Amino acid sequence: MTTRNVSRFWEWGKKIICVGRNYADHAKELMNAIPKDPVLFLKTPSAYLTEGSPILIPKYSNNLHHEIELGVVIGKGGTSISQSSAMDHVAGYALCLDMTARDIQDDCKSKGLPWTLAKAFDTSCPISEFIPKEKIPDPGNVKIWLKVNDQMRQHGCTSEMIFSIPFLISYISEIISLEEGDLILTGTPKGVSAVQVHDELHAGIDDVVSMTFKVDKLKQ
Amino acid sequence: MTTRNVSRFWEWGKKIICVGRNYADHAKELMNAIPKDPVLFLKTPSAYLTEGSPILIPKYSNNLHHEIELGVVIGKGGTSISQSSAMDHVAGYALCLDMTARDIQDDCKSKGLPWTLAKAFDTSCPISEFIPKEKIPDPGNVKIWLKVNDQMRQHGCTSEMIFSIPFLISYISEIISLEEGDLILTGTPKGVSAVQVHDELHAGIDDVVSMTFKVDKLKQ
Ligand SMILES: [Mg+2]
Ligand SMILES: [Mg+2]
Ligand SMILES: [Mg+2]
Repeated sequence: MTTRNVSRFWEWGKKIICVGRNYADHAKELMNAIPKDPVLFLKTPSAYLTEGSPILIPKYSNNLHHEIELGVVIGKGGTSISQSSAMDHVAGYALCLDMTARDIQDDCKSKGLPWTLAKAFDTSCPISEFIPKEKIPDPGNVKIWLKVNDQMRQHGCTSEMIFSIPFLISYISEIISLEEGDLILTGTPKGVSAVQVHDELHAGIDDVVSMTFKVDKLKQ
Repeated sequence: MTTRNVSRFWEWGKKIICVGRNYADHAKELMNAIPKDPVLFLKTPSAYLTEGSPILIPKYSNNLHHEIELGVVIGKGGTSISQSSAMDHVAGYALCLDMTARDIQDDCKSKGLPWTLAKAFDTSCPISEFIPKEKIPDPGNVKIWLKVNDQMRQHGCTSEMIFSIPFLISYISEIISLEEGDLILTGTPKGVSAVQVHDELHAGIDDVVSMTFKVDKLKQ
């Protein structure tokens, strides 16, 4: 195996594990109960999108939402990782968008169907450049924000998370073994809303990273 | 990149895309409607299990079910693949088990939650050896069977599928780009039932492949 560079995890990482409803204010805005355990769902690596390429609205959705989230990049894999050692398994972070076809998700929820079409379509996981671990000394106190066409839509702090990053790593790794290059999306603060063709999404963590993505329609 | 061997797709493939309710008799036995579109859900590659290692019952489930399925291994990736060219993208097949925590899945369905805990836990995707494409000249007419402790539990034919393999490849690739090494699980015929610790699952496609897995409890 050639040496893999974790700062380009999206090229070879195998998993994107997402946590839903991890900020109480966001759970409330979607009329969801505060979860007792983390709500987990999956995207696949074909959902990754890096700056320069557009977010594409799936043909089957009329209500594509932005969810700005802190992503945790796994550096060292493991199973049943303890909370106390969880941070040793982190290589770094990425600012991420969990693009969500809300109309489809609502339909799936009401029918008891899996969320795949709502969450895992191509371009559903735009990401920033890799953020080395040292650049975020306290991942439990990171302010993330998202503007759409220069209007602030989401701003929150990871201190508002219901389940902390070490808890999530430990919880997930009991069920699904983690591997180097895996990404965990840690949930979104309130303020999710629909995007339209030609919108410009600009997001950041002050003094750490910023990213910009355009929205386009899936051609065909 | 070193050359990857598709006959060991489970070591480096990035996606497992599963189709639910693709056999009418199975949809009926779980009291589900016959779907108008394929029902898609995801496992992650950490779910792969090859012969010699046991299927582990998750600690949170008291009703782990077997679902025997034909898996399609992608050889050539693509987006929006046409049905007429779909078979050109197939490298081969694997006989697969979609192990399902049915109690958890029922709970997720009733609460509108994603199926991750029911479907994507470690060891939830036992697979046979790789079956080269030439060994299955007509994938639309393959008999698959599963015995538990020498009792026949499932036997079906891919001719009973609601959505054919070329249709599934085309449908999925419109939403989620396919890549070399990806696996598509094509659904299970009727006869799903619970497994217990020490059960032996023996499955096959006559004259093509067979596989055996023991069931164990997750230790801890
Ligand atoms: Mg995956
Ligand atoms: Mg989210
Ligand atoms: Mg199945």
